[in-house]
Amino acid sequence: MKTKTELMFFTDGIDLESGDRLDAFELMVESYGKLNESKSNAVLVCHAFSGNHFAAGKNDDGETGWWNQIIGPEKAIDTNKFFVICCNNLGGCSGSSGPKSINPKTNKAYGSSFPQVSVSDWVNSQKILMDKLNIPSWEMVLGGSLGGMQALQWSIAYPEKIKKAGIFAAAAKSSTQNIAMNEVARESIRKDKNFHDGNYIEQGVIPKNGIKTARMLGHITYLSEKHMNSRFGRKFQDDDSKVDQDVDFEVENYLRYKGEKFSEVFDANTYILMTKAMDGYDAAGKLNGLENALEGVAAELLIIGFYSDWLYPPERGKEIQIAAMNNNIKSSYVVLDGDHGHDSFLFHNDQYSQIIRKFIQS
Amino acid sequence: MKTKTELMFFTDGIDLESGDRLDAFELMVESYGKLNESKSNAVLVCHAFSGNHFAAGKNDDGETGWWNQIIGPEKAIDTNKFFVICCNNLGGCSGSSGPKSINPKTNKAYGSSFPQVSVSDWVNSQKILMDKLNIPSWEMVLGGSLGGMQALQWSIAYPEKIKKAGIFAAAAKSSTQNIAMNEVARESIRKDKNFHDGNYIEQGVIPKNGIKTARMLGHITYLSEKHMNSRFGRKFQDDDSKVDQDVDFEVENYLRYKGEKFSEVFDANTYILMTKAMDGYDAAGKLNGLENALEGVAAELLIIGFYSDWLYPPERGKEIQIAAMNNNIKSSYVVLDGDHGHDSFLFHNDQYSQIIRKFIQS
Repeated sequence: MKTKTELMFFTDGIDLESGDRLDAFELMVESYGKLNESKSNAVLVCHAFSGNHFAAGKNDDGETGWWNQIIGPEKAIDTNKFFVICCNNLGGCSGSSGPKSINPKTNKAYGSSFPQVSVSDWVNSQKILMDKLNIPSWEMVLGGSLGGMQALQWSIAYPEKIKKAGIFAAAAKSSTQNIAMNEVARESIRKDKNFHDGNYIEQGVIPKNGIKTARMLGHITYLSEKHMNSRFGRKFQDDDSKVDQDVDFEVENYLRYKGEKFSEVFDANTYILMTKAMDGYDAAGKLNGLENALEGVAAELLIIGFYSDWLYPPERGKEIQIAAMNNNIKSSYVVLDGDHGHDSFLFHNDQYSQIIRKFIQS
Repeated sequence: MKTKTELMFFTDGIDLESGDRLDAFELMVESYGKLNESKSNAVLVCHAFSGNHFAAGKNDDGETGWWNQIIGPEKAIDTNKFFVICCNNLGGCSGSSGPKSINPKTNKAYGSSFPQVSVSDWVNSQKILMDKLNIPSWEMVLGGSLGGMQALQWSIAYPEKIKKAGIFAAAAKSSTQNIAMNEVARESIRKDKNFHDGNYIEQGVIPKNGIKTARMLGHITYLSEKHMNSRFGRKFQDDDSKVDQDVDFEVENYLRYKGEKFSEVFDANTYILMTKAMDGYDAAGKLNGLENALEGVAAELLIIGFYSDWLYPPERGKEIQIAAMNNNIKSSYVVLDGDHGHDSFLFHNDQYSQIIRKFIQS
């Protein structure tokens, strides 16, 4: 699979939804496959909260991209046919401009002073990327969770630039409970003694403990209760493999391990910024209801929910489907089994992959 | 309502499930109403995780007891008829022996060295209290959540000492997800810079931030998603009433406020100890299944679940009911509406109060 990873510079900058402006910005962009001559086979994949541009293939450390089960030669998104692009979102911590970047005005890391970005800002930055690549229209924009929100927003903001949208395990807005959970995660980061109001880079420290706790909570919301019960139940952790001596249950050990690993690689300010963007998104917000918001959508929609997802449960997808139907938008909505709760959108299963394949190749 | 609050001393001590022993202990005990001559009207009320002995009536600060809607003259648990007792559980932070108490062997606060207690230990300590009061048998033992676990355990451990048990919004064991949520809360406390491995009293500090975050998470699990949606929705907090300037949504403000208040009064080691007791309880654990565990139960059971409770959902109560039915135990199971999620057990509504009243007076 032809893969290209590139840090791209955008010197015209971007006006943000908040009223702030970035005079210039960078995006870390990865692509798979080959753009055809008519530039009609481009697919934009949008990552979820903690993802990045590395969506497919295997890197030098043997790690695979977050959607490697779905993207690749002869996979659901077939890179023999499509030119697939994924970029680390603005505000991220994997190479694109974000809190870890140097603010040219101060020559210090932005830290918490990096402007708050939104789902709309991401879509607008991806539109600037699209223009730079001279891609006239996306064959499809798709993603799961926060990535699905971007696909939905693409269909609303640039109807003439997107033929199909895939909105998986997503919602047109976060629920009160979603916001509440994110707020607990943010609180654990803000109150880490190493957070220093977000200016920890200057202090030469990292608020690891806060990120760890935040991620442990996140994990619970990504997995289904049933999956956790069957995988861990009430089993006690073997003494030999405890990450800490005061661990009792296997599920405690798992969460601490996962949280610890994540805290070593993810940026705390990005955590806060990304969850704020997620909480803040409301497709219908300024447009007098979701039905009105979808009025101008021209793309064909594929909306997939998962029964075991309790973060963005199937009802959230149904709300989008109903608003689409009432606008006579060509739209297919389906709820699949999925063994992995909210995370089900990440994993191949025959039904899921086949539905994506048929839709994108239709 | 005749109310008595008393710190009671138990100089014979107690052997704990862990193998540890307390050579002596104290319980803060509150009672309502009057014990009749035949001592046949005694009711034990068991508190949930963050409750204490103050179950009913109003104190000098105008605060009401945690079950004041249910306990009182002519209320569901009628203190004109019954002598109602509630004690702060061993390991608590409202007067009973716990991590804040002085360890007589070191003349310092126990802190994290206070022995881990269990639901069985609480029941055993309440049995010692019962003996001291010369109460031959409880007319009823009841409680919600962790309090319901104690009522269940009473019926298993001392069948000849309890006529009726009320098990509300409870379970015979915590689920993997319950344990996982508690572990996140504990992690936020353990990683507070003021926690000092649980010996913060010696250091003259309190791990307030950790307790606050833990409580914020707890609150989400106590409320139903529907209740949160209808109460807070996606409304923004007024600038005038923000607890912190970086608050956006009302639900964030509410959680921060509630967490902050709780962190001022609750002990961090007790938080860890109580949640560990909750996680560790498994009525069936050593007894080869719940059905076998209930074999000797002689009490009549009243099991109530609430549709909106996602912490201990109605299915958990049904498991107890089925095990009871298969033992031919006289047992009534009902699922009520309840507007308050898991917390519904705390609030009066006509159906709920009437069911308790009829059961206890039967």
